[in-house]
Amino acid sequence: MAPERYKEYEHILVAVDCIIFGFHKNELKLLLIKRDFEPEKGKWSLMGGFLDDDESLDEAAQRILKTLTGLHDIYLDQLHSFGDVDRDPVERTISVAYYALIDVETHDKELLKQHSASWFPIHSVPELIFDHEEMVLSALKRLRRKASHQPVGFELLPEKFTLPELQKLYESIYDTNLDKRNFRRRILSMDVLEKTEEKQKTNSRKGAFLYRFDPKKYSRKVNNGDSLIFKTLKP
Amino acid sequence: MAPERYKEYEHILVAVDCIIFGFHKNELKLLLIKRDFEPEKGKWSLMGGFLDDDESLDEAAQRILKTLTGLHDIYLDQLHSFGDVDRDPVERTISVAYYALIDVETHDKELLKQHSASWFPIHSVPELIFDHEEMVLSALKRLRRKASHQPVGFELLPEKFTLPELQKLYESIYDTNLDKRNFRRRILSMDVLEKTEEKQKTNSRKGAFLYRFDPKKYSRKVNNGDSLIFKTLKP
Repeated sequence: MAPERYKEYEHILVAVDCIIFGFHKNELKLLLIKRDFEPEKGKWSLMGGFLDDDESLDEAAQRILKTLTGLHDIYLDQLHSFGDVDRDPVERTISVAYYALIDVETHDKELLKQHSASWFPIHSVPELIFDHEEMVLSALKRLRRKASHQPVGFELLPEKFTLPELQKLYESIYDTNLDKRNFRRRILSMDVLEKTEEKQKTNSRKGAFLYRFDPKKYSRKVNNGDSLIFKTLKP
Repeated sequence: MAPERYKEYEHILVAVDCIIFGFHKNELKLLLIKRDFEPEKGKWSLMGGFLDDDESLDEAAQRILKTLTGLHDIYLDQLHSFGDVDRDPVERTISVAYYALIDVETHDKELLKQHSASWFPIHSVPELIFDHEEMVLSALKRLRRKASHQPVGFELLPEKFTLPELQKLYESIYDTNLDKRNFRRRILSMDVLEKTEEKQKTNSRKGAFLYRFDPKKYSRKVNNGDSLIFKTLKP
């Protein structure tokens, strides 16, 4: 009988962990919370929890992120499932990791204070529990791949941004410096940005024009098979 | 206490399913087996089984594939975890799907007879159990994406192949017809193939030269950031 056959097998804890990247003050950042139970209590952790019986993996990721941080309706992409036998010292647990790119300023007011979710610049991430560092590295790799064929700025930047801000974003993602003139020329030649009449004057008296992505133009490019244009931004 | 906290949560069956693509007689094919237990006994299925407590997800995929088909040491890539609540009618089960591209001729002798694993042309795949069709579609999408930046022929073709065979492979993957002259010109201009002195005479008296991939040349291209060359084969 099938149900008997099913009973023979191990039933295992399934965790879901969320890797949230943000971009703020010209830096790529990672959202972490302090774990408030043993083992590894007090250490920094991704936002994680266990899958309930009555929710899909995607629903669990949304619930866990919302409960622990207050962030809601975030578009989460499944990254990878981590299944080493000893990855959690307490008990065999597999973890399905999800990741998201968010614009810090838009979402910062949602963050709950009681769980002390905090943003860390990607270059000064503290020691993390379990295999969470491996998860973050895997998500960073995915972000780099994504940036090579999609305009990730859509998700990480506010609606309007300057070209220097966009350049900083790509520099953060690829962890390198890009030549200003080349970057400008390449991004403008893609013809996916719309220049507004507004200027941002925070960083210079002359100010820098604000741009926004034009999703229609971009979709047309992608449908024409032109998505490889984003490769040209790769250093 | 942590172990108590862990005990509160649902323990869930974790399945692993394997999607194996092959290329044979100019067709892209999918390996399936007949399910030999209820529910859905006698229907076609991906190669699946449950995760044991003492093996990682990657190890489970290798074990399940070997036990059910005889295929061993196949490079399996994790595809996606499928976690809808009702995906298995017997009991809540999440499934971690893996996929592989193999050269049918090299591996066909490994296939065990007792489980009747059979190759189906991708255009005439029978009805599959559970959400296995969704898994196959997801794997096909991944294969197409992969083909746009990697030489998938390495994995799906025998060591030596003709240009018409390589063209058929790309036509199968993209489910379309490609112009012969354009394809030839593009693939040769990539400079990743080595022409051998041998000819295959199965399909014409004049015969067609056999080629092989030159992995060194290819690696150099990729390291130089030239991997976008494969995009040009995309219709």
